[in-house]
Amino acid sequence: MSDAGIAIGQIGERELLRRLRRRIPTDGGVLVGVGDDAAAIATGPLTLITTDSLVEGVHFLREWTPARLLGRKALSINLSDIAAMAGVPRHATVSLCLPSDLPLAFVDGLYDGLLERAAETGVNLVGGNLSATNGPIVIDVTLLGQADRVLRRQGAQQGDLVVVTGQLGAAAEGMKALRKGARLDAEGNLESTGRFSESLAGAVEHCLRVQLDPTPPLAFARALAERELVHAGMDLSDGLSGDLLALCSESRVGARLDPGCLPVDLQAAMLERTRNGDPLALALHGGEDYQLLLAVPPERLEGLRDLAVVWEIATTVVGEFDAADPRVRLESGEELVPASHEHFRPSRHERADAVAEA
Amino acid sequence: MSDAGIAIGQIGERELLRRLRRRIPTDGGVLVGVGDDAAAIATGPLTLITTDSLVEGVHFLREWTPARLLGRKALSINLSDIAAMAGVPRHATVSLCLPSDLPLAFVDGLYDGLLERAAETGVNLVGGNLSATNGPIVIDVTLLGQADRVLRRQGAQQGDLVVVTGQLGAAAEGMKALRKGARLDAEGNLESTGRFSESLAGAVEHCLRVQLDPTPPLAFARALAERELVHAGMDLSDGLSGDLLALCSESRVGARLDPGCLPVDLQAAMLERTRNGDPLALALHGGEDYQLLLAVPPERLEGLRDLAVVWEIATTVVGEFDAADPRVRLESGEELVPASHEHFRPSRHERADAVAEA
Repeated sequence: MSDAGIAIGQIGERELLRRLRRRIPTDGGVLVGVGDDAAAIATGPLTLITTDSLVEGVHFLREWTPARLLGRKALSINLSDIAAMAGVPRHATVSLCLPSDLPLAFVDGLYDGLLERAAETGVNLVGGNLSATNGPIVIDVTLLGQADRVLRRQGAQQGDLVVVTGQLGAAAEGMKALRKGARLDAEGNLESTGRFSESLAGAVEHCLRVQLDPTPPLAFARALAERELVHAGMDLSDGLSGDLLALCSESRVGARLDPGCLPVDLQAAMLERTRNGDPLALALHGGEDYQLLLAVPPERLEGLRDLAVVWEIATTVVGEFDAADPRVRLESGEELVPASHEHFRPSRHERADAVAEA
Repeated sequence: MSDAGIAIGQIGERELLRRLRRRIPTDGGVLVGVGDDAAAIATGPLTLITTDSLVEGVHFLREWTPARLLGRKALSINLSDIAAMAGVPRHATVSLCLPSDLPLAFVDGLYDGLLERAAETGVNLVGGNLSATNGPIVIDVTLLGQADRVLRRQGAQQGDLVVVTGQLGAAAEGMKALRKGARLDAEGNLESTGRFSESLAGAVEHCLRVQLDPTPPLAFARALAERELVHAGMDLSDGLSGDLLALCSESRVGARLDPGCLPVDLQAAMLERTRNGDPLALALHGGEDYQLLLAVPPERLEGLRDLAVVWEIATTVVGEFDAADPRVRLESGEELVPASHEHFRPSRHERADAVAEA
């Protein structure tokens, strides 16, 4: 541990900055990296930019998330946005609000995860900001990407198929497992099943990993856009019900969703059933899937599936864009009302409280 | 007021996002603005990027700062970094952590200031993020700029003159005035002189304005770089003593500073003397000046001064880079020890407490 057991208040901002800067590698695309007033980077004619935060007490609790996985996730939720625009992630800045009693080991772990995930995805950390706070930790990442053409939320047409990648619901089930005391260690291995029986260890570990260390299908999204296989797309972060409605609104079309077709994560469904829960609700409203939601013209579905095989990505047709009014209906004709993440609202406070009550 | 008197928790995240998005104009350089997974912008071959935050309780108190001025400052502190690299500010993202009981009027005011300052400086707001928080307000801005050549911190040479723009110390004196109860209203006019006598109203208003609504010399910095009049530069944000040492470290030179030459803000000095304070310490260590610190070869000083006249910017020679070891000495030979902003450290806690005690 050496000096990692001390609090950051004991070493001060300048020394912490020096410590973090020393760890950051740079490559040829970075003309001026961290340490000047601003970074200077080489860019192409079209640049993507997105920003997303993790706030303690709202998106995570320190006791739930090893710092390394938190660092990975802070970048991954932004990678998901760049993937959803079919871009290549390139440069990131990281702005941290840290309480002075935070252990240095936590900040080191956070940077372990950030740098590791950046290296995996070809991203350079080019700048950032450290601020003290009297409140919760805030990790704010801004990510720049490069693109030739972009995949937008608008563009879905009547007749297009509603396609999702991967499986849904495991991240939401992972959140429930965290509330029940299940934990991963810093290496992402199961540390405790909490109130789940040991026989469910494999499923618990799987759901915790999807929740704490999401892996959006970056390369697949780019390949999709290059081949013009889709009309529109976005990432699934707030839950399918709300996100599909958002895609419909931006494209000014309506959709019919067949719940029977949803690719509910099998291990999440199993855990959910042990609690007499509803696996379908998990897949519809759970959120944080960080998969892709796509509008695919029927004649290009085969091309999409061929490409998905190459990238080892599951794709599932779950409905059709079939109307002009931007609403989502189930097969039964019933309108699907989003029950997804909403900050500030009382329902969200309950959620935040629920996060905090563990 | 109408709905501006309600709290943001009453209208929810989606409605707040819709409300803010409606206000954001876009221009031709923005291919995809707010509302998609990421923004897409047109960029040149060299892009500058910087990020800086304002954290409640550390950088501001709600009672001290009208929301509109806070919005302006959140952008201005980033503009200062782009200016210090000799760039043209272009695109910004704004990431906000907001408590749910925050009045909607506060968020509207914040955006009034952000959009106004963005319009003044040719910046497009292209994205952002809203998050709930159980803690202090955090305003995190990332600003992209465009540049042909950049002005770096490294490059100062022995024999170069140490030059600062503008006057120093007014922002720090403005902070003291805030602690004494002096206030500006949302239009930036004096609302109260606090514990200062009415006869000092003009000076109090001036210092509050410099503190709450800084105006870094954007155009001048670009013109400087175009004409290659300086070897190195940075912005003065942490205080001259610390910033000059940083410039020395990056350029691997030492400097001699003549305190008698410092352009201490006259009105700040007057206020400081009414409290038997030390105007020089204010100018040396006060911070938040958001002026430029430059390394100017003597033969180009006249060119710099000619240019400064055009842009109506004061420039003052305050010393010389005259040694190889990266230290700063006063005329007396004494080493200048920075007493500038340092987060996390106990000294900084005292400062944060001092901020909070008002």
